[in-house]
Amino acid sequence: MGEKRYQRKIYLEDKPRAEALQEILEAARLAPETEIIPTVEALGRVTSSPIFASISMPHYHASAMDGVAVNAEDTYEAHEQRPLHLKKGSQFVYVDTGNAIPQGFNAVIMIENVQILDEETIEIIEPATPWQHIRPIGEDIVQEEMLFPQGHVLRPADLGALLAAQVTQVPAAKKPLVTIIPTGNELVQADDRLPYGKIIEFNGTVFANYIKEWGGEPVLTGIVRDEPENIKAALLQAAEVSDIIVINAGSSAGSKDYTVHILNELGTVFTHGVATRPGKPVILGQIANKIVVGVPGYPVSAYLALEWFVRPLICQYLQIPVPKRQTLSVKLGRRIVSTMGAEDFVRMNIGYVNGQFVANPLTRAAGVTMSLVRADGLLVVPPEQLGYEQGDMAEVELLKPLEDIMNSIVFCGSHDLTIDLLSSQLKTQRSDMKIVSSHVGSMAGVMAIRKGEAHIAGIHLLDPETREYNISYVKKLLSGQDVVLYPFLKRTQGWMVPKGNPLDIKSAADLAEKEAEYANRQKGAGTRILFDLLLKEQGLAPEQINGYDREMFSHLSVAAEVKGNGKAAGLGIYPAAKAMGLDFVPVGDESYDLLMTRAFFESEKGRWLIGVIQSESFKAEVDKIGGYSVVSNAESLLLDGQK
Amino acid sequence: MGEKRYQRKIYLEDKPRAEALQEILEAARLAPETEIIPTVEALGRVTSSPIFASISMPHYHASAMDGVAVNAEDTYEAHEQRPLHLKKGSQFVYVDTGNAIPQGFNAVIMIENVQILDEETIEIIEPATPWQHIRPIGEDIVQEEMLFPQGHVLRPADLGALLAAQVTQVPAAKKPLVTIIPTGNELVQADDRLPYGKIIEFNGTVFANYIKEWGGEPVLTGIVRDEPENIKAALLQAAEVSDIIVINAGSSAGSKDYTVHILNELGTVFTHGVATRPGKPVILGQIANKIVVGVPGYPVSAYLALEWFVRPLICQYLQIPVPKRQTLSVKLGRRIVSTMGAEDFVRMNIGYVNGQFVANPLTRAAGVTMSLVRADGLLVVPPEQLGYEQGDMAEVELLKPLEDIMNSIVFCGSHDLTIDLLSSQLKTQRSDMKIVSSHVGSMAGVMAIRKGEAHIAGIHLLDPETREYNISYVKKLLSGQDVVLYPFLKRTQGWMVPKGNPLDIKSAADLAEKEAEYANRQKGAGTRILFDLLLKEQGLAPEQINGYDREMFSHLSVAAEVKGNGKAAGLGIYPAAKAMGLDFVPVGDESYDLLMTRAFFESEKGRWLIGVIQSESFKAEVDKIGGYSVVSNAESLLLDGQK
Repeated sequence: MGEKRYQRKIYLEDKPRAEALQEILEAARLAPETEIIPTVEALGRVTSSPIFASISMPHYHASAMDGVAVNAEDTYEAHEQRPLHLKKGSQFVYVDTGNAIPQGFNAVIMIENVQILDEETIEIIEPATPWQHIRPIGEDIVQEEMLFPQGHVLRPADLGALLAAQVTQVPAAKKPLVTIIPTGNELVQADDRLPYGKIIEFNGTVFANYIKEWGGEPVLTGIVRDEPENIKAALLQAAEVSDIIVINAGSSAGSKDYTVHILNELGTVFTHGVATRPGKPVILGQIANKIVVGVPGYPVSAYLALEWFVRPLICQYLQIPVPKRQTLSVKLGRRIVSTMGAEDFVRMNIGYVNGQFVANPLTRAAGVTMSLVRADGLLVVPPEQLGYEQGDMAEVELLKPLEDIMNSIVFCGSHDLTIDLLSSQLKTQRSDMKIVSSHVGSMAGVMAIRKGEAHIAGIHLLDPETREYNISYVKKLLSGQDVVLYPFLKRTQGWMVPKGNPLDIKSAADLAEKEAEYANRQKGAGTRILFDLLLKEQGLAPEQINGYDREMFSHLSVAAEVKGNGKAAGLGIYPAAKAMGLDFVPVGDESYDLLMTRAFFESEKGRWLIGVIQSESFKAEVDKIGGYSVVSNAESLLLDGQK
Repeated sequence: MGEKRYQRKIYLEDKPRAEALQEILEAARLAPETEIIPTVEALGRVTSSPIFASISMPHYHASAMDGVAVNAEDTYEAHEQRPLHLKKGSQFVYVDTGNAIPQGFNAVIMIENVQILDEETIEIIEPATPWQHIRPIGEDIVQEEMLFPQGHVLRPADLGALLAAQVTQVPAAKKPLVTIIPTGNELVQADDRLPYGKIIEFNGTVFANYIKEWGGEPVLTGIVRDEPENIKAALLQAAEVSDIIVINAGSSAGSKDYTVHILNELGTVFTHGVATRPGKPVILGQIANKIVVGVPGYPVSAYLALEWFVRPLICQYLQIPVPKRQTLSVKLGRRIVSTMGAEDFVRMNIGYVNGQFVANPLTRAAGVTMSLVRADGLLVVPPEQLGYEQGDMAEVELLKPLEDIMNSIVFCGSHDLTIDLLSSQLKTQRSDMKIVSSHVGSMAGVMAIRKGEAHIAGIHLLDPETREYNISYVKKLLSGQDVVLYPFLKRTQGWMVPKGNPLDIKSAADLAEKEAEYANRQKGAGTRILFDLLLKEQGLAPEQINGYDREMFSHLSVAAEVKGNGKAAGLGIYPAAKAMGLDFVPVGDESYDLLMTRAFFESEKGRWLIGVIQSESFKAEVDKIGGYSVVSNAESLLLDGQK
């Protein structure tokens, strides 16, 4: 393989996305297939031709009331002073709502306005006007009326109208069959044992479910090994049965990226590379009139490429427009830098704080599936734009309902495992509320409160001078702001080391001495500040710590890092060490408090949150984890910096 | 039956909807059942407890690039002026994106920056920094991290995150089983032959599909006859297997409305009647801890009641919030009168005309299914409000995507069958555009253009003096407005009579003389104006015409009316008579033109529309119907009233 390995022959294009799409849409212009399906099974299906009513609804003159049918002319003499008697059969008949009006009658009198004298006779005191309380033929639907044009997506009420018009079968666009081919030697199925160095194949399931949501019929094949012959066979087989083919990974220009060569051999390549970040390494081509979309392996790039190219193909097949997402105008909490000449797709967190929508970018790494899960919106930066400044307003496409965003409590700051518990308990009591958290460290948490980007921040900031937690930082950084510091937890920090503590780490000095591979936290994290203080106390410089520059964003990340490496160590909280099966050498207890504005503290959301924190059930859950004590009878500290 | 028939014992309450809902939600507070389902089948399901990652993703240090893994320390000497050679195995190994970094290596150099000297040796000219191009363990997902809280509705990307974290099964809320019982002696299944006086059962299918969309598991039973014993048996059986029971019709206070009595006998009745219009006759009760919702028979009332009471029950069962609809601020085109003390639910058409959203009420009859199909929005008038004046702004809940509303061409005015054809042809060329039409007659069409409520109006208004069509009306009514009158069709008006023309109708005089039962059109309809002129010409008064006051809203409605009645007659266009299999006696040809503002005529929508009208394919379709000629080489008439 060595000799083939680095023969990099091709470079990716930077074709504008719209142009690349237009080419495949034109190449795919085939007459879509249609099928006749029972109306009762047609929910969500798309009509392939206009549909006309077979019968009228009602298909007879129907009584709109419970009462008696009469001939209006027979009633003209009726008057309060001169009650009129009518005879059953010849002059009236009883009708219920929906009953047909018998021949010879042309009005209905409500039963409330009828006096029943005997089995055969009624009395009325008011004349009827012709056609009163009668639903005429076709009041709802008229026979031969067009009920729906083609291209209509059938909703529940639509099915009712069809059945009412006796249309029991409908012509529908056949769902396009989309074959999904996952490729890669490193892939294994999720239900297999997971060997070291292998990756679970999950993109295929994601694709299949998006395609289902978009109206296609997905078929997910087994994993295909990275061998040209296997890939060729899979593509040819898919081309026989599918309307669209999606092949995952191998779409770039590396040595094992065979797809583009195979596609060139079997059919046509329209595009190799689009001007987008992420998602650039896309292949668009055709085998035997079937469009092939080759998407990158990194999940975020993959899903974006699927949406850009496969969704419009499905919609064109179904003859429906591509639905657009709701957009929202947001204020940007951070500067966003974009590539000139390429569209940038930035996943965003959005918070509704102090009456405005504030958005911040999530990680831009294309390999982070969770950034798609967590994203509230998508910021699309056009190719000609270099980005945005902090504080700029921008339009984002919403990935979640606006309501979800408005009902979320935005948590920012230091990572603690109890925040998830808190979110879960809150949701039990208020299914419409939840906590959305980003772990950016204590200092960033304080700044988020200051800038109005979060509702609440978890902080544990040790003041080296006063040896007190949090208060001095808040006073200094939030001077003049009306905030509340709510005492939340006491928790134990300590050295997280592999099971058995092979290097026998007991102090910062041990880390240096025994050349441990230290996993540090990011700047501004409370744990980093504590570590720096511990170093200083022992007269150590950062350079003496192996791995000081390696930054992790949560206790669990540090623990995960330590777990795999016998020489590793980290500083963090007990429950993280416990979760990963590590040993833990306590360093000391610290105060982990919740910082919020007074406005939030006193708001409905704030009151619910504090209610959950103070509940016995939450305390019991926290006790189960261990290493914590919830501060009982907490008295919140009102910190108005002016004082 | 006569003796029981009119023993009306009970009257409906007017209980506030929110109160009625609260009672059943509290009565239904049971621990919801959960089940374990495969992740790959979990799309749209709701997590019933928090879900944590089983493994990290990546679960090893992974290369983020195609290249070579090195030990950064070995590379510090590399410099453009002093290239450095590295030996395979001891100093470097080849890695592809996603490969595990072997023990002893801590950085990756991109293949682009490597010079391959031979099988065993590479050259680099730049040092690597530790951990560069390496995805650390848990970069995406950290083992033990909470991926989702309970109550999360799983989306495609969520399934990817679960599988990536090796969570192959998830705990999900069981879908509540909702049994739907349609009752009524007049009901037949849609696939049966439809006897006179019977109604197709379609509410059940609508209910089942809404329930499916909301996350429930619907079971639709067969039609139950209106006999207490049958209804009792059906309810008891449903109570054994269901979580929620919906019984349709029989919820009012009529003689055959048994449900409330049976429910009182078998369990508890909480509510009989809510303060809403429509939808008042609702029954809420309980049999053996199962909530029973009795909904009215009229489709609109039925679907509203389902949404008010069954949807929140399902959501409570799934522990998710009840989704809210997007709202839109609209200008009201007509006055809306509402009942004091009851919430009013008014189905609305919404048009985006001249840059503003204008909404008009559809029919308020609870029996008109098509009003649900056609509605763009729902105006909820609170109980304490008497309504709105024309021109008021109001918030409406959207029943269609905003985009659909913005892309619609609002057609108003006289009914013609070719408008549906035009809509269908337009949609073929522009799947995102469609014509939304309401048949209000020519005069109302002119007024809609004048008030900016429609884009286009179809009109055929004969001036009795000039014997000219349309122009004089437009000049008079749209004086000063910049409009275009586009010559669209010539079409034939005539007498629509039953097959064989039993009364031998040839003129208006024949109608009077032979005492035909005439089906008239509404005031302001072009056909009504023509009829009045014909009467005048023959010296006839409206009172001489049997049925003159009976108003129908379309040619098809008149034709449907004539079809069922050997003595009937109507005036209308040839294709309507043809569609219903009637005989047709021509009266004369008329001009059916399209009126629009010049702004619309010149807009993108306008240009597409005119393009379709002028296309050969449209003309061919119109020819197929018969009785029409599309005006060829039409020259549109610019009518600026100022001139």
